[in-house]
Amino acid sequence: MNYADRLQQAIDQRGNACLVGLDPILDLLPPEFAAARDVTRTRAERARALGDFCCEVIDVVAGRIPAVKPQSAFFEALGSDGVRQFERIVATARNAGLLVIADVKRGDIASTAEAYAHAFLGGVPGVHADELADAVTLSPYLGSDSIGPFLEICKRTGRGCYVLVRTSNKGSADFQRHGSPELSFQVADAVVKWGAELVGESGLSSVGAVVGATHGAELASFRERMPRTPFLLPGYGAQGAGAKDVVGAFLPTSGAPRGALVNSSRGILFAYREPRFAGKSWKDATRGALDAMIQDLGAALGAR
Amino acid sequence: MNYADRLQQAIDQRGNACLVGLDPILDLLPPEFAAARDVTRTRAERARALGDFCCEVIDVVAGRIPAVKPQSAFFEALGSDGVRQFERIVATARNAGLLVIADVKRGDIASTAEAYAHAFLGGVPGVHADELADAVTLSPYLGSDSIGPFLEICKRTGRGCYVLVRTSNKGSADFQRHGSPELSFQVADAVVKWGAELVGESGLSSVGAVVGATHGAELASFRERMPRTPFLLPGYGAQGAGAKDVVGAFLPTSGAPRGALVNSSRGILFAYREPRFAGKSWKDATRGALDAMIQDLGAALGAR
Repeated sequence: MNYADRLQQAIDQRGNACLVGLDPILDLLPPEFAAARDVTRTRAERARALGDFCCEVIDVVAGRIPAVKPQSAFFEALGSDGVRQFERIVATARNAGLLVIADVKRGDIASTAEAYAHAFLGGVPGVHADELADAVTLSPYLGSDSIGPFLEICKRTGRGCYVLVRTSNKGSADFQRHGSPELSFQVADAVVKWGAELVGESGLSSVGAVVGATHGAELASFRERMPRTPFLLPGYGAQGAGAKDVVGAFLPTSGAPRGALVNSSRGILFAYREPRFAGKSWKDATRGALDAMIQDLGAALGAR
Repeated sequence: MNYADRLQQAIDQRGNACLVGLDPILDLLPPEFAAARDVTRTRAERARALGDFCCEVIDVVAGRIPAVKPQSAFFEALGSDGVRQFERIVATARNAGLLVIADVKRGDIASTAEAYAHAFLGGVPGVHADELADAVTLSPYLGSDSIGPFLEICKRTGRGCYVLVRTSNKGSADFQRHGSPELSFQVADAVVKWGAELVGESGLSSVGAVVGATHGAELASFRERMPRTPFLLPGYGAQGAGAKDVVGAFLPTSGAPRGALVNSSRGILFAYREPRFAGKSWKDATRGALDAMIQDLGAALGAR
């Protein structure tokens, strides 16, 4: 089954389109995991604490949401020890029934792009199949031939990718809005073309687009340009976007949400730091924040 | 001493501006390292063979050229075991007196970009200082706030970065030439701005630009736009560009080359496969190909 169909199945099963970003920022980790930022520990010990935290988060969210999105950078910051933990949490999340989107934003040419595709999505025999992701995020700056090797492997292995179209940060306007039509529209058109051969039974493609939830008013025009593209919407919560901002990214449906995942990272992982969860354990705070997000998003979609 | 000055010092010492890309493509490795592609071996054994090959290449090129550029993708394809070997070859190259440019083409926002900067350039206490690179390649799609954290760390630690401006591949035209003026010119102007506070005693900045050697005629216009920017020029050799194509990227000087590094990867690492080196060991072939590159580049620069 291709990625788009597996994704829609997971959304149908859970009844929501919430994506939890596993961004274990050292300075924000609960005190139980302070070993991760203790420079007197070995790097391997620090990395293990990072992995332990993410595994416990996975335990809290599994069964409630369709997918998680681990952010590679926070693991790479602890070198190969960190990468070993990234592999561990990918495997842990998949074994817990979650789809895994590896947030790596890679982009390189030809044989190099192929090596990255092998690294995260597989397609070569004998190499760490348990630790491969279901989908990966990609940066389009190098053009079509940097995306091609990923499309090949997605086709062969039933996996997916999300191409950065319009990111959630303020600086996204610097280059993504360059030209007329703006660059992000040109990338959007390319995403549609790349994804044409990967449309599944759900009517959606396995080639998705990253579009910041922070660009509320523009979301509808991106949706119009990319009618069969699954969206990954960062920027919810800590970055400022709310449930009403993302409604325009979803496809019309009478049942479960369709066509987008809404990501929150810090707002879920580090909810224990918010006054509204004062006195609660970090796990209860995370659970509470996720419940609130599921409810808010469901209400906003229901009110369409 | 800042990165630009250390780089120019290394170029002065070696008398050339050749950069060897460490791209250990599994299928092209000499038979001595066939373990790297043997799927009956463990992943750690395969990764070690990859690392062994690169360490032997480093042994051949050390003392002859200013810098090497390991390509992270080929190591990541073997998971955390591969990343461990990436760390090993970074340390080996630095200990052999080579500058190391980690070719990782990362690009992400805010705290995530900072984590990547920590991963490759350091700036946090207690974490794998031996295995940090001198400079890193970056993708600009996410805008200024994705570059900022790297500039901070370059300033604090005397390290450098090279931002993708116009890559060597055919698909580079897809988005990099979008708009008028084309996007790559806008990125070039941003590179100048980002690098203004990192200009060293050499008159060059520690913020460099990746400009494909395959765009011969345009190199001079990029050089005009970025007069204090060190260029990293991929595309030499296997990708089709020759010594005459890259001359326009260098700054005028009567001594050692100034202002650019010319990269060759496959043409050096896998020279043993070329008919002209038939009957030679892979090391002799690699040594011969590097000597030829140094000579060709020197002659073309001397004839200016």
